[in-house]
Amino acid sequence: MNMSGQRLSIAALGGVHEIGKNMYFLQYANDIIVIDCGSKFPDESLLGIDLIIPDVTYLLNNIDKVRALVVTHGHEDHIGGIPYLLKQLNLPVYASRLTIGLIENKLKEHGLLRQTSLHCINAESTLELGSITATFFNTNHSIPDCLGIVFDTPEGTVVHTGDFKFDMTPVNRQYPDIHKMAEIGKKGVKFLLSESTNAERPGFTPSEKLVGAHMEEAFFKADQRIFVSTFASNVHRLQQIVDAAQHTGRKLTLLGRSMVNVVGVAQELGYLNIPDGMLVEPAEAAKLDSDKIAVLCTGSQGEPMAALSRLANASHRQLQINAGDTVLIAANAIPGNERNVSKIVDNLYILGARVIYGSRSELHVSGHGSQEELKLMLTLMKPEYFIPIHGEYRMLHHHSQLAEDVGVERDNIFILKNGDIVESSAGKVRQSGRVPSGQTLVDGLGIGDIGNVVLRDRRQLSADGILITVITLNQTDGKMLNEPDTISRGFVYVRNSESLMEEINQLVTATLLKLSPADLGQWSIMKQTLKDTLGKFLYERTKRRPMILPIIIEV
Amino acid sequence: MNMSGQRLSIAALGGVHEIGKNMYFLQYANDIIVIDCGSKFPDESLLGIDLIIPDVTYLLNNIDKVRALVVTHGHEDHIGGIPYLLKQLNLPVYASRLTIGLIENKLKEHGLLRQTSLHCINAESTLELGSITATFFNTNHSIPDCLGIVFDTPEGTVVHTGDFKFDMTPVNRQYPDIHKMAEIGKKGVKFLLSESTNAERPGFTPSEKLVGAHMEEAFFKADQRIFVSTFASNVHRLQQIVDAAQHTGRKLTLLGRSMVNVVGVAQELGYLNIPDGMLVEPAEAAKLDSDKIAVLCTGSQGEPMAALSRLANASHRQLQINAGDTVLIAANAIPGNERNVSKIVDNLYILGARVIYGSRSELHVSGHGSQEELKLMLTLMKPEYFIPIHGEYRMLHHHSQLAEDVGVERDNIFILKNGDIVESSAGKVRQSGRVPSGQTLVDGLGIGDIGNVVLRDRRQLSADGILITVITLNQTDGKMLNEPDTISRGFVYVRNSESLMEEINQLVTATLLKLSPADLGQWSIMKQTLKDTLGKFLYERTKRRPMILPIIIEV
Repeated sequence: MNMSGQRLSIAALGGVHEIGKNMYFLQYANDIIVIDCGSKFPDESLLGIDLIIPDVTYLLNNIDKVRALVVTHGHEDHIGGIPYLLKQLNLPVYASRLTIGLIENKLKEHGLLRQTSLHCINAESTLELGSITATFFNTNHSIPDCLGIVFDTPEGTVVHTGDFKFDMTPVNRQYPDIHKMAEIGKKGVKFLLSESTNAERPGFTPSEKLVGAHMEEAFFKADQRIFVSTFASNVHRLQQIVDAAQHTGRKLTLLGRSMVNVVGVAQELGYLNIPDGMLVEPAEAAKLDSDKIAVLCTGSQGEPMAALSRLANASHRQLQINAGDTVLIAANAIPGNERNVSKIVDNLYILGARVIYGSRSELHVSGHGSQEELKLMLTLMKPEYFIPIHGEYRMLHHHSQLAEDVGVERDNIFILKNGDIVESSAGKVRQSGRVPSGQTLVDGLGIGDIGNVVLRDRRQLSADGILITVITLNQTDGKMLNEPDTISRGFVYVRNSESLMEEINQLVTATLLKLSPADLGQWSIMKQTLKDTLGKFLYERTKRRPMILPIIIEV
Repeated sequence: MNMSGQRLSIAALGGVHEIGKNMYFLQYANDIIVIDCGSKFPDESLLGIDLIIPDVTYLLNNIDKVRALVVTHGHEDHIGGIPYLLKQLNLPVYASRLTIGLIENKLKEHGLLRQTSLHCINAESTLELGSITATFFNTNHSIPDCLGIVFDTPEGTVVHTGDFKFDMTPVNRQYPDIHKMAEIGKKGVKFLLSESTNAERPGFTPSEKLVGAHMEEAFFKADQRIFVSTFASNVHRLQQIVDAAQHTGRKLTLLGRSMVNVVGVAQELGYLNIPDGMLVEPAEAAKLDSDKIAVLCTGSQGEPMAALSRLANASHRQLQINAGDTVLIAANAIPGNERNVSKIVDNLYILGARVIYGSRSELHVSGHGSQEELKLMLTLMKPEYFIPIHGEYRMLHHHSQLAEDVGVERDNIFILKNGDIVESSAGKVRQSGRVPSGQTLVDGLGIGDIGNVVLRDRRQLSADGILITVITLNQTDGKMLNEPDTISRGFVYVRNSESLMEEINQLVTATLLKLSPADLGQWSIMKQTLKDTLGKFLYERTKRRPMILPIIIEV
């Protein structure tokens, strides 16, 4: 794949046709700039897998050309893959202050901090990266210190928005820099890559300030302890919770590792302002009067191991929820998590808590712009070409529709799959060719070694279990030495199934006796015949299809 | 548990603290009346399980007292368990005409039709069931022919609402009988059991008629084929779709077994009015001009095997969706199904279809009453005691709150678990005692044989697979005859893991050699030691915990 010469290439390695593991790159001549490197959580079909990261084969194949990783903000779906990337290739990382802080935490965990070159940037920075110059602009989102990126290339300007909304009354005065965006658009934008998360939603996403008002109200109405659960990374939200606690004379304690981490980093870097003496340890919080304490905890997505879930199960070691306490769930359940969140709400009510939750609670607003904001970005940037990113297909589709509505030519809009390339050469733009792309699965310590075979096996095992039959044969004449020995796991409850096991053993013996002398020596034929015969028998008997594993031992 | 004497007992065997498998009973002296017998679909933690039904041990232990099963309406969560119940005990079944039709279909599948005593009832019926007399009233819901039940007992009147909303402009003129409900309430209701599905939702659920208007609009706007997916059981919705097809000069074809079944039953019994000649077979539909056909299909919840999913994957044998076709998803995703529905929408867009979906589509309204309707029912019935049913805990909790708001004494409100009993004796009412209750799991042909052990095994197998090590010992001296033989499935990709397998075999040998002569003969000790040693080794190496299964063969 010839990527050199006067050609600009733009591609996604992750983040299109999906939500999660965002990773994009620009290439001009011998310069590749990578934008973001996120991770994604597996759904239930990826059994036993911990994390999914983008397949970076292309970068490894062009390792000498990779100049830099530029990061738009500190959410997991933009930084979660960085440690795994840096284990495979070393490249300098450019990110804003809070983002650097969060990346550093990850690198420490993976023992990579010392060898990584981390550079702090902001909206005023300029990066000369070979033939490409990068400048930046402030956007706002549900985490502070978000940047959009402007790439000046010989084939024109490429703008990558990062994640954004237009919150005109931002909590920490981190305004979206509309004037700068207007200037960028005025100068001329060839390509716009803009995030599509809320492209299906009409209207304008409400401001984070609204949450603050409702949070204060909820704090005032509570007469006993308050437990608030929200995304740890939403530092603006944490600030409003701190403010509400302060206004109601409550101290604050933190439950959950990611909450402690983020609050630590945010406070240290000046993004979170907590009055002296307000933060207390959980042990001390347990002793305070119930109307003098608020608890900020992880687990707003119903994660079974996080603090909120354990509090709801009355299994948290340090604190408990008593009847009359108030629990505020300041988050909407991400699709897939609703049942876990519902179970927690049920358990909280059973404990006698007052619970404020759900989309009507007004304790949460999205961090992503809705249709009017996406159109605003398109209007400010006035791109000639448009590539919607950061979304599942229907979101990319709706975003394309919005782009067309504001005046981008339909033929100039590209809905890409991961790996697809849009290239621009001497001003001519087209979608052309692909680079390797895909998902790399992280399971325990293994990165990328779990593939389809293992997953397929796990799926079968999970549905109907396994039946193992061990056959011992005499080395000399190939005849069976013992009765077969049949064991099952996850198939039937053995104590109630002795007669079934007996029948299986008899069937195994009978099947082997029926084999011709020629076949009898051929283990692969013996095993396959056994699998077929047993499989058929078990399905007729039980309508179940356990994995069947014949093991032949020669003695 | 003495349940005789002048005591009325009310309990749920399914349907409280959950949505699904509704089953309730009343008992007075030697008369037990069962209300509904539904089923429930398993979530992902119940691996390989097909269906969940209520545990009816209590009824089996009191088989001579069970007088009748009275069914409120034909939804799966009210009739899905009936075949399994009737396999265990024979009792007469009373239900409305459409409900009988749907129950008959199920009984035919299970070969139970001939031996079952099915009785057709309606809002005018009176049933004398020993000491209890049952009368009925019309309600409306997302299926026709729904009944609420009034039980007159010597300890007072018990009302069971079935599922309901108050749709004042019902599609087929099946009005909720508010006047009769008022009379019942005026005469005096001791206990009210009312459904809680939408108890968290403020306001009033919109009428089904609204959907009709939007459906017509969507049909008029479509210029090619129309595919509509909705719940097969919502006959009112089907009628509106038929009407829209008729008004736009389109024939109609059905895809999906449950759609064909329900339309068949509903047409035959007069609940669905389809003009002659309108219904065509899929093969014929494929030949018609694209603006002359509408397709009504199953799969609105994203079910992978249903019609809509296969159409979206372009894998349906009879029909395909072309670019420019319109797909209407007239349903909201039930929590847990959102991702499957989203994937289908993505695929439909990729095929180039126009898709109308989601809560903003106005093509769906709930069949369950919201808070104002629940309060209306409470106000009409004016019960002395209240038992919220048909809901997860938070729904029961909110419903209890509504009951308190309208004036029911807090102490007269009972939030029950399945198996809890509320009893009334000589006018005194209290919650007292329990009957056996729980879930019976249906897997393949097995009913109830899959328990915790099997499920726990399936979970472990699904996460990290299994490692089997076969050890052959000399019968005479207990020494190992061969090298151990280690096989894995779902753990690692074996071709890349030969050295790991080799290390495992060496570890097995070393572990056995270290055993004392006394332990060496004890298979349970040998196996446990191997499990512990291998488990530790594998976790340190891989951070994974496959099931470890040592098999010892003596020759």
